[in-house]
Amino acid sequence: MARALVLEAARKLALRDIDLPDELGPEDVRIAIDTVGVCGSDVHYYTHGKIGPFVVKQPMVLGHEAAGIVTEIGAAVTHLALGDRVCMEPGIPNGSSKASKLGVYNVDPAVQFWATPPVHGCLTPSVVHPAAFTFKLPDHVSFAEGAMVEPFAIGMQAAAKARIKPGDVALVTGAGPIGVMVALAALAGGCAKVFVSDLVEDKLAIAAGYDNIHPILIPRDNPAEVLQEATEGWGADVVFECAGAAASIQAALEAAAPAGCVVWVGMPVDPVPVDIVLAQSRELRMETVFRYANMYDRAIALLASGKVDLKPLISATFPFEDSIAAFDRAVEARPTDVKIQIKMGAS
Amino acid sequence: MARALVLEAARKLALRDIDLPDELGPEDVRIAIDTVGVCGSDVHYYTHGKIGPFVVKQPMVLGHEAAGIVTEIGAAVTHLALGDRVCMEPGIPNGSSKASKLGVYNVDPAVQFWATPPVHGCLTPSVVHPAAFTFKLPDHVSFAEGAMVEPFAIGMQAAAKARIKPGDVALVTGAGPIGVMVALAALAGGCAKVFVSDLVEDKLAIAAGYDNIHPILIPRDNPAEVLQEATEGWGADVVFECAGAAASIQAALEAAAPAGCVVWVGMPVDPVPVDIVLAQSRELRMETVFRYANMYDRAIALLASGKVDLKPLISATFPFEDSIAAFDRAVEARPTDVKIQIKMGAS
Amino acid sequence: MARALVLEAARKLALRDIDLPDELGPEDVRIAIDTVGVCGSDVHYYTHGKIGPFVVKQPMVLGHEAAGIVTEIGAAVTHLALGDRVCMEPGIPNGSSKASKLGVYNVDPAVQFWATPPVHGCLTPSVVHPAAFTFKLPDHVSFAEGAMVEPFAIGMQAAAKARIKPGDVALVTGAGPIGVMVALAALAGGCAKVFVSDLVEDKLAIAAGYDNIHPILIPRDNPAEVLQEATEGWGADVVFECAGAAASIQAALEAAAPAGCVVWVGMPVDPVPVDIVLAQSRELRMETVFRYANMYDRAIALLASGKVDLKPLISATFPFEDSIAAFDRAVEARPTDVKIQIKMGAS
Amino acid sequence: MARALVLEAARKLALRDIDLPDELGPEDVRIAIDTVGVCGSDVHYYTHGKIGPFVVKQPMVLGHEAAGIVTEIGAAVTHLALGDRVCMEPGIPNGSSKASKLGVYNVDPAVQFWATPPVHGCLTPSVVHPAAFTFKLPDHVSFAEGAMVEPFAIGMQAAAKARIKPGDVALVTGAGPIGVMVALAALAGGCAKVFVSDLVEDKLAIAAGYDNIHPILIPRDNPAEVLQEATEGWGADVVFECAGAAASIQAALEAAAPAGCVVWVGMPVDPVPVDIVLAQSRELRMETVFRYANMYDRAIALLASGKVDLKPLISATFPFEDSIAAFDRAVEARPTDVKIQIKMGAS
Repeated sequence: MARALVLEAARKLALRDIDLPDELGPEDVRIAIDTVGVCGSDVHYYTHGKIGPFVVKQPMVLGHEAAGIVTEIGAAVTHLALGDRVCMEPGIPNGSSKASKLGVYNVDPAVQFWATPPVHGCLTPSVVHPAAFTFKLPDHVSFAEGAMVEPFAIGMQAAAKARIKPGDVALVTGAGPIGVMVALAALAGGCAKVFVSDLVEDKLAIAAGYDNIHPILIPRDNPAEVLQEATEGWGADVVFECAGAAASIQAALEAAAPAGCVVWVGMPVDPVPVDIVLAQSRELRMETVFRYANMYDRAIALLASGKVDLKPLISATFPFEDSIAAFDRAVEARPTDVKIQIKMGAS
Repeated sequence: MARALVLEAARKLALRDIDLPDELGPEDVRIAIDTVGVCGSDVHYYTHGKIGPFVVKQPMVLGHEAAGIVTEIGAAVTHLALGDRVCMEPGIPNGSSKASKLGVYNVDPAVQFWATPPVHGCLTPSVVHPAAFTFKLPDHVSFAEGAMVEPFAIGMQAAAKARIKPGDVALVTGAGPIGVMVALAALAGGCAKVFVSDLVEDKLAIAAGYDNIHPILIPRDNPAEVLQEATEGWGADVVFECAGAAASIQAALEAAAPAGCVVWVGMPVDPVPVDIVLAQSRELRMETVFRYANMYDRAIALLASGKVDLKPLISATFPFEDSIAAFDRAVEARPTDVKIQIKMGAS
Repeated sequence: MARALVLEAARKLALRDIDLPDELGPEDVRIAIDTVGVCGSDVHYYTHGKIGPFVVKQPMVLGHEAAGIVTEIGAAVTHLALGDRVCMEPGIPNGSSKASKLGVYNVDPAVQFWATPPVHGCLTPSVVHPAAFTFKLPDHVSFAEGAMVEPFAIGMQAAAKARIKPGDVALVTGAGPIGVMVALAALAGGCAKVFVSDLVEDKLAIAAGYDNIHPILIPRDNPAEVLQEATEGWGADVVFECAGAAASIQAALEAAAPAGCVVWVGMPVDPVPVDIVLAQSRELRMETVFRYANMYDRAIALLASGKVDLKPLISATFPFEDSIAAFDRAVEARPTDVKIQIKMGAS
Repeated sequence: MARALVLEAARKLALRDIDLPDELGPEDVRIAIDTVGVCGSDVHYYTHGKIGPFVVKQPMVLGHEAAGIVTEIGAAVTHLALGDRVCMEPGIPNGSSKASKLGVYNVDPAVQFWATPPVHGCLTPSVVHPAAFTFKLPDHVSFAEGAMVEPFAIGMQAAAKARIKPGDVALVTGAGPIGVMVALAALAGGCAKVFVSDLVEDKLAIAAGYDNIHPILIPRDNPAEVLQEATEGWGADVVFECAGAAASIQAALEAAAPAGCVVWVGMPVDPVPVDIVLAQSRELRMETVFRYANMYDRAIALLASGKVDLKPLISATFPFEDSIAAFDRAVEARPTDVKIQIKMGAS
């Protein structure tokens, strides 16, 4: 029995003891959790009890953005040691699947992902995890930053999918947490500058606090026009659609340059009208993103080098005992809140 | 003054004399036209007087799928000779534009394209054309096949955009002329087999006359299910959506394999609901096609090698004097008609 | 104890009993071997006792090109059934390695590969193999063809690495078994035609027996000149260097078109002078090939569709009892011999 | 007649009047030159009278790295205005060639390139240049920086060819001017960090003055070992070989990670032994660079954003009247000299 933040059902959280799998295989490590970030999906399970086809039918531990300390090591593990500070990639594929063999293990239908029903998450003091999906943190990268690697990896996946060319100009539609992660990954990943559009000025202000991120306040400014002006009439080499709203999806296509790329990151609840002929007239490439694969080491390298600084995005930190308050703060969704974290206290 | 098939206005064709540009620049050639294919866009201008924003406001010569014989050569032309049998790429970009310098001259906004208002087409006995967009036909490739290079180039562009890997399995939705061209280009371009879906059995029969093209009759058979079965549950590596209908667009996404590619070839009149989350869950890449660039020589090479045989797709040939009858036959749209051609008779 | 063809040391083969691993794990299948091809590397171990750093220090069973019948199934195996006719991918990576997670498991340093010291091969009546690397053969693909999938997969890897565009023109230098496999994969993978160069007319004759493969007899004909002539002075879009000789490596660069690709398939024993400035002046891309990854299902799909016919390349078949004679025939290396196979007789 | 720095023959420079082409076509602009950088190739023509097959057979104006002010505009030019501050791409292709249509105009054999015999360069107060290859400088980018765009574009081309993924770790072999340009482009283009190796500590010190560039002093440190250690044993995702020496070429291959990329930037005078089997064992991709195409606007965007600062690399500036002294300083090649510039004084 371990203490954990358990989602009993929609709108019902409990910090209580629960039976969790605990066996350490030869390729696993045991990790004392230090910090866990609260993700939009955690909040959505809390408020709705489901995300699309994933329904919480039995009590489930929340949390999948985590960093901690290695406390036990499986017999076959070689690249990690006791006491290593680490962060964990929360999705575990079947390594023998066709998708895994192709290097796209994130789209393996068999993936087991923390806090996606019926799989328990990591808001508990200790977890067992495959060493292959556990990544050492450099000394100067904090646990709090380590717990940010998960959402940043989504930005990295989007930036990688875009195949940015050095000096590209990008537009990100939507200045929410993922939009900001994408903007930072795009800049670190080669863009000369990134425009971010949103309806909420306070959210834009956080993004615009970074060098070379330029805010576009909608509807005052029109993204396509701003991009035209910034590029001598060419348009955005890459557009990252992170809002998931119909208007934003149209704006993404309008702002893209000929032969440009639009990355669909935002997840609209229902099918959305897409102007395919507009996309064709510019021969746009459109990429989609589903979580990430092979991005953790790259994300950590960019944090370690200082090219990306996620610390300003940590809005508040709650102790484990106040986890429910942390979730309620996240539900509240202040415009200036990017990431709420929970400190478990391994360190 | 030259004789030409002139679209006076919607539904009004005339075979009459008209003033056409006739000056031969140093990088141009003059071509006696032998054969011209009737394209769906020609027919659409005939029946509607416009395609989207392109409106026929003054008399315009139709035709853009042509082959002929070089009869005069500009002073700076080196790769063509008098008497060469040739086919012509109908879109002429501004070679100094950013799009042209990038190699994507098809999306140069300044492109002048035959029979796209206000530019005259080639249904006239002689035209002047830049040598750089005029391609020599091998001896054993007929004028009729040469005039098929234009629509086949669209199939080639789609196949190139898909970045087919050798042995891919593809689905083409829609067995119209472009669907068949795409299927043939996909097969020649590396697919092991190609499934083609349509509602009309007669159209499928033409496609299925080729080796390794397998018909899917809708709604009797479900494309996603057929593809699942053919690929041990994986799905289509590449889907070419060539129908442009909402149902087909959904079917395209459903049939695609994880990390697969959907190429949007069909042009729906209005924005169409697209299930972006479905595309994301498989991390699909989506490509779009706008005409073609750098495909003519490749298309000719495949015809010359015998890997692609377009001759079975030529349904009927009319003499120039019967051009209007040719168009009326094309408007009629018999299910077994793929391509109607007009023989100008240069040869 | 099982009967097997054992390489005791250089030049010393024995058909004898030997202790072989025999345990069936939950993700494994047991296969009765029907056919095994003799590969150049098998022959090289036989004649030299080593290949580069891989030295045969203890008796080792040879053979890695195999097809057979599933006779037992591990508890977790779902995609194979008793009696399935199959072929096997001979290299087993560590599925948790970074290379494997990236989809390039062939360059995982931990790969265990049949008949690469100290790992035993498959020239024995029964083997245990991971189901994930065991592929079902369609009914109309014979065991003999199934045992050809391994060498053909190398050709497929080369063709995939080249990123052939539909209608490319290719040159293959060297008409040995791998050269022919590469030429067939390149044709099936999208090339309009493939030129193959060699010094030996008899070897060229076998390649040239296929449609759209054109022989270049060296030194009578010069590959670069032939390719220039075949492409209006442009050059080969793709060159597959399969000879591994210095002269051939220079010829490969000379024949390549601007912005073309050279795939280094042949393995020169020592470092070879490469004219880097020549490669730069055309801005060539150069790819290398190490075995293959994710190619078996694609290779089988092309065999099954009839787009690739490997049957003419099977030069002779020996019964298991005559395995040593089979190897001696392979050592003899008649110019018209492409593939020698050994029939184990499971079927 | 215009005043210009004329290379009369090897080792013989004159600042004198010379007849230069002066006609302004409709798509051209006239530019008053402000600043010209001295390139290694200029110096090589000065000291040797030739580079490979390019021999100075008649007096030739040197210089191809230039920035200036637009003083006259051709009738068809729309994107530039009188008084615009600009820099110029020095190579002019035939826009109708196959290479140009493909977007790889840099490998068009017909390219006319400043100061490559027999084409005159730009070390003269005024030049005529196609507007399509003339790029506006943002207000805060100086002429001196504008004249650095040319060498930086080579770095950009190398970085683009590498197809850097965000967070890659790179090695640059050779800390000369091009090595430093490549390192900066690689960092701006997505690398988390870049190691630069050289034999000369003073040259390394300049590179290492930038954030995230780490020096490797040879032979004290071994690049492959340093990279192994920095990447948990994986190796460099990308290696840019910028030294052109045999030892460096071997070091480049040794340092590269499995499935990594080596970009051949340095130009060895003669063919160099390359360990192809080593490259194959890691399945390396090798790219080559020939000048650049479509890089000027991207390079300027990165300078304008502040992501790349080239100002520290300008080692000395000479007035036009002292051009010969500038060249003699460049011949001298102090280890701490990166770029010598000549100020023509248009501004």
